Amino acid sequence: MSAPVLVELVGPDFAPVVRDPAAPLLRADDVGALRGDGAFERFLVYRGRPRRFADHLARLARSGAMLGLALPPEAAWRAAVDLVVANWSGADEWEARLVATRGPESGGPTTAYVLGQPLAPSLLQQRQEGIAAITLDRGFASDLMGRAPWLLLGAKTLSYVVNMAAKREAEARGADDAIFLSTDGQVLEASTSAVVAAFGRRLVSPPDEVGILPSISLRHLLTDAGEAGWEAVREPLKVDDLKAADGVWATSSLRFVRIRSLDGDPLGPGEAHAELEALARRGTAPPQG
Amino acid sequence: MSAPVLVELVGPDFAPVVRDPAAPLLRADDVGALRGDGAFERFLVYRGRPRRFADHLARLARSGAMLGLALPPEAAWRAAVDLVVANWSGADEWEARLVATRGPESGGPTTAYVLGQPLAPSLLQQRQEGIAAITLDRGFASDLMGRAPWLLLGAKTLSYVVNMAAKREAEARGADDAIFLSTDGQVLEASTSAVVAAFGRRLVSPPDEVGILPSISLRHLLTDAGEAGWEAVREPLKVDDLKAADGVWATSSLRFVRIRSLDGDPLGPGEAHAELEALARRGTAPPQG
Repeated sequence: MSAPVLVELVGPDFAPVVRDPAAPLLRADDVGALRGDGAFERFLVYRGRPRRFADHLARLARSGAMLGLALPPEAAWRAAVDLVVANWSGADEWEARLVATRGPESGGPTTAYVLGQPLAPSLLQQRQEGIAAITLDRGFASDLMGRAPWLLLGAKTLSYVVNMAAKREAEARGADDAIFLSTDGQVLEASTSAVVAAFGRRLVSPPDEVGILPSISLRHLLTDAGEAGWEAVREPLKVDDLKAADGVWATSSLRFVRIRSLDGDPLGPGEAHAELEALARRGTAPPQG
Repeated sequence: MSAPVLVELVGPDFAPVVRDPAAPLLRADDVGALRGDGAFERFLVYRGRPRRFADHLARLARSGAMLGLALPPEAAWRAAVDLVVANWSGADEWEARLVATRGPESGGPTTAYVLGQPLAPSLLQQRQEGIAAITLDRGFASDLMGRAPWLLLGAKTLSYVVNMAAKREAEARGADDAIFLSTDGQVLEASTSAVVAAFGRRLVSPPDEVGILPSISLRHLLTDAGEAGWEAVREPLKVDDLKAADGVWATSSLRFVRIRSLDGDPLGPGEAHAELEALARRGTAPPQG
């Protein structure tokens, strides 16, 4: 097991400092813990190169703006990730997390750190075996996002307890993950990934405007698939569409996995899996198994 | 300024240990911070006596059950609060927070602590001056709670970022707090308190089933008001009801404050304020000012 690496961005200049990942870092009154009040990003690092780092920094900045959160400058994040990379001694492929909270409740400053960790064994297993999913009502309509920005739909915040509860609900029902539906029956996203379906050489995923996180891995996959001859579009999807598709996948910065079944019904065989997986994993470790 | 007091419940027996509140307590990979994955409670302590402690322990246990979270036993929380009380050297009236997270992402154990803090100056000001509120769409229907338990409506979790964002939205519009409305126009709750309205000697607050936190202070207020000759009921309320009321208040374990205006319209004069405030603050410091 590779050892995690932790680098804190220490104010006021957010200078990167290596910390012991097993020792405490956050104060008891940090609103990251008390209120889930902060933003984060996760991405792969392969052979020392952070993948799509600029995209993740841009999305972190967007989340920070939605939260009114003062973030370290990009140069500070880059220096911190460089230091994590320099101290990493584990496998070729691992994950980095950027975390920023509003800091102690008494008035900051921002808490910021980068955590390098080995990939979870469950993730490696899902990549090879695919997952079983269930659908769960997310409780809001697909037109909510635009009219209620204070609900922070589409921001990647530290308040993820509902995503975790949805995953536990799926596991309690014998599945691996949940796909959220809007109250008007539109497919939204899985608990920690985007959903994409293939119909022949047509690749479809719901638009961000239905109230989901703008997925970086999805955007690249659609672009790359388009260059490889697919028609790749963002369009509303319903459950019946997923059940009629030739294949359905969950994609995030850490994985591209086939969804084998939905609410107990087998989904399309996903014959394009190897082709799409190769696109999704471009520039990282080759698919195993 | 009184100094905060921090006591950690240290596993496996959750023994209470005094910690320095200015030193770090949580690991960087604690899912309390990474995911807002945990539960909390806040309550008043007056002259060394925690107020409605048993009620808060019961609600914490309920939140823990909704989250599938292993909590310290009640005796451990009581011992920890006793130790905070014994170390408190500030004002007669202060607040205690119980916090429990699922612990480090690698697999726990539960992180648990009690934080004693002075009351925020803004809270003392609101008690005296009341607040201006705006209404904000909460994005879900008032019948959602029963059919989607995975959304954790009514659980007091550490994922409070939307509540914080709603309060910032209110402040950006020149108000102090937000009152959430369901998509079908029902009054839900304020960002960190319950809403109650008076119509003559009739006191009305929405039922918990609309998808709100079961408020301990509200329950006691309605019971005490009933004994003082009020008719006290849980019934759906609409914005027009609030605007027609003789007075509207926000109540939480830390405060009972009049809502002076809603979306810029003045609300009823709240002539019952002194009487209700005396009930709400029974057993604590007398109202100031």
